[in-house]
Amino acid sequence: MRVYNFSAGPSTMPLEVLKEVQKDFLDFNNTGMSITEMSHRSKPFMEVNDTANALLRELLNISDDYAVLFVQGGASQQFAAVPLNLMTSGVADYIVTGNFAGKAQQEGAKYGTANIVASSKDKNFTYIPDVDKIKFTDGADYVHITSNNTIFGTRYTKLPKTSAPIVADMSSSILSEQINVNDYGLIYAGAQKNIAPSGVTIVIVRKDLLGKEKSFCPTMLSYAVQAKNDSLYNTPPCFSIYVAMLVFKHLKNLGGVKAIQEINQYKAKLLYDFIDNSSLFTNNVNKADRSLMNVPFVTPSAELDAKFIKEATENGLASLKGHKLVGGMRASIYNAMPIEGVKALIEFMKKFELENK
Amino acid sequence: MRVYNFSAGPSTMPLEVLKEVQKDFLDFNNTGMSITEMSHRSKPFMEVNDTANALLRELLNISDDYAVLFVQGGASQQFAAVPLNLMTSGVADYIVTGNFAGKAQQEGAKYGTANIVASSKDKNFTYIPDVDKIKFTDGADYVHITSNNTIFGTRYTKLPKTSAPIVADMSSSILSEQINVNDYGLIYAGAQKNIAPSGVTIVIVRKDLLGKEKSFCPTMLSYAVQAKNDSLYNTPPCFSIYVAMLVFKHLKNLGGVKAIQEINQYKAKLLYDFIDNSSLFTNNVNKADRSLMNVPFVTPSAELDAKFIKEATENGLASLKGHKLVGGMRASIYNAMPIEGVKALIEFMKKFELENK
Repeated sequence: MRVYNFSAGPSTMPLEVLKEVQKDFLDFNNTGMSITEMSHRSKPFMEVNDTANALLRELLNISDDYAVLFVQGGASQQFAAVPLNLMTSGVADYIVTGNFAGKAQQEGAKYGTANIVASSKDKNFTYIPDVDKIKFTDGADYVHITSNNTIFGTRYTKLPKTSAPIVADMSSSILSEQINVNDYGLIYAGAQKNIAPSGVTIVIVRKDLLGKEKSFCPTMLSYAVQAKNDSLYNTPPCFSIYVAMLVFKHLKNLGGVKAIQEINQYKAKLLYDFIDNSSLFTNNVNKADRSLMNVPFVTPSAELDAKFIKEATENGLASLKGHKLVGGMRASIYNAMPIEGVKALIEFMKKFELENK
Repeated sequence: MRVYNFSAGPSTMPLEVLKEVQKDFLDFNNTGMSITEMSHRSKPFMEVNDTANALLRELLNISDDYAVLFVQGGASQQFAAVPLNLMTSGVADYIVTGNFAGKAQQEGAKYGTANIVASSKDKNFTYIPDVDKIKFTDGADYVHITSNNTIFGTRYTKLPKTSAPIVADMSSSILSEQINVNDYGLIYAGAQKNIAPSGVTIVIVRKDLLGKEKSFCPTMLSYAVQAKNDSLYNTPPCFSIYVAMLVFKHLKNLGGVKAIQEINQYKAKLLYDFIDNSSLFTNNVNKADRSLMNVPFVTPSAELDAKFIKEATENGLASLKGHKLVGGMRASIYNAMPIEGVKALIEFMKKFELENK
């Protein structure tokens, strides 16, 4: 039986895509071999790579001013790659809105001055600082933000106004709602939440920012090298790129980012409305900053939380345990979580509430 | 129809393993989800990760003095990670036996003095320098070798005698023949030749070498960080690790590295013997240094090479085109290439020879 999987990442994928991967797994496109057995320089794989790139460009309306890269190492590796490539004057600004935002800042501090210009640590990251009130550093090489905070369930709904390029970690929100790529200098995202199996990381970078990497930047972390080689400087994570291509196609067929955004808003509203009206469950995130993707919630006690998670699992609602930094529960409702999954969760929460008042 | 796939990497995989992946793709171990949808912190995936690690340790008889890591970025990323972690006194020795060995040396030179203590460039890398005649640098942090040269079809059959730790890129030979891990300070290997789909890189490192990385080493490239976190510092390339586990199991069932080495020696001998006795095909690698995994060969003309590749492809013998640096043909006969595949290639070569004398 297929469960509803609320994992924060790696996370649920479109069943249609999984079925296509399975069907074609032994013989991709009549090549007589698996997609996993194919040279990355072969025509069939190069076509996959090019198609994935073109589809992402189409879905996010990315102009030719930007390079689109498929690299390895996850967002954590980008925490280093960003300063190694972009911290040319030695100073950058970071807004710290959670665990990963903090790690990005700490990694940045290895390579120069990584100013924390705002933080929501004072309230355990339950809100996004008012970006209009932040004083940014003159001449900073970039301003780093974490668009959606997977652990804490917050998201930016407004971008800082600054002359420095905005660098955004969109690991848990990419393709979930419409963005204007031109507002950013660089966007990066581990694929394992909204796109593909773990192992590939998306980087979208404005081309005029390329080519200024530090002398000790590992070649593999140089955006210029990856851009020049269409992400084929060495063997890429072919399988993840292939599945990403299928997910991009699937999303395009659904109507693109605009269509999935409406679905995501609908799903999130269903769940938040239920929680806000519940006498058992609460979500303590500032309402204006609530994530569309990750919904943390708690009951009044850790014992009841544990009971909820156990019984939910038994009822085919999987991976609802919250992150250890927050406790309680977290429902990650990425693009691939069907509306029925959210409804099933709410039905179960209703039942649990009645039984445990 | 399944072809015999002689690709140098990504490359052919055991059909049994591919079938198991396909069978379980929608529902791993009765979890109700795909292995690609599962949190890397979940019990089922942690078990996969631990099992893969334990099996590799068993297959290569790796002692507790070594950490076994599953990381990202391929061998090319290790070209930087090795000096970033191990070049503590600022000097290392490199033996340059091909394209990738050269790239490793160039990357090393970013971080200190990367001495080329021997090279086989004078004869287009058709041999391995006599390691007994090499003068190594006193106090070098390590000696870097490339155990098997994928493009040129050579391999080391003897290790340098040196007091410095030997660092070996085994991307195209790992698990193909028995080695004594204790002879090495560090071994690394991209998985996409003998182990798994691209996206995971194996690192086997002596624990006493850990923890001396440079201050500007990206956290993700720190062996100490990866070792401390059992390769789960961030989301790993879960699917590739899962398939690696299945390949390790498969290899264990076959009788381990000793058994596959015998098969590999048999396969390679069949092909080299045929080529050496052919009046059409030649392999110009120094006989003592011939690779068991990658067999480059040519006919007397580039036109005939092209004709051979075209007709072989039509006959279900795929990906035989040689690397552009060498030209001609290359048959990569990794662990997963069945004996029948090598025999089919030889039969086709015989026929082609008769028709094109």
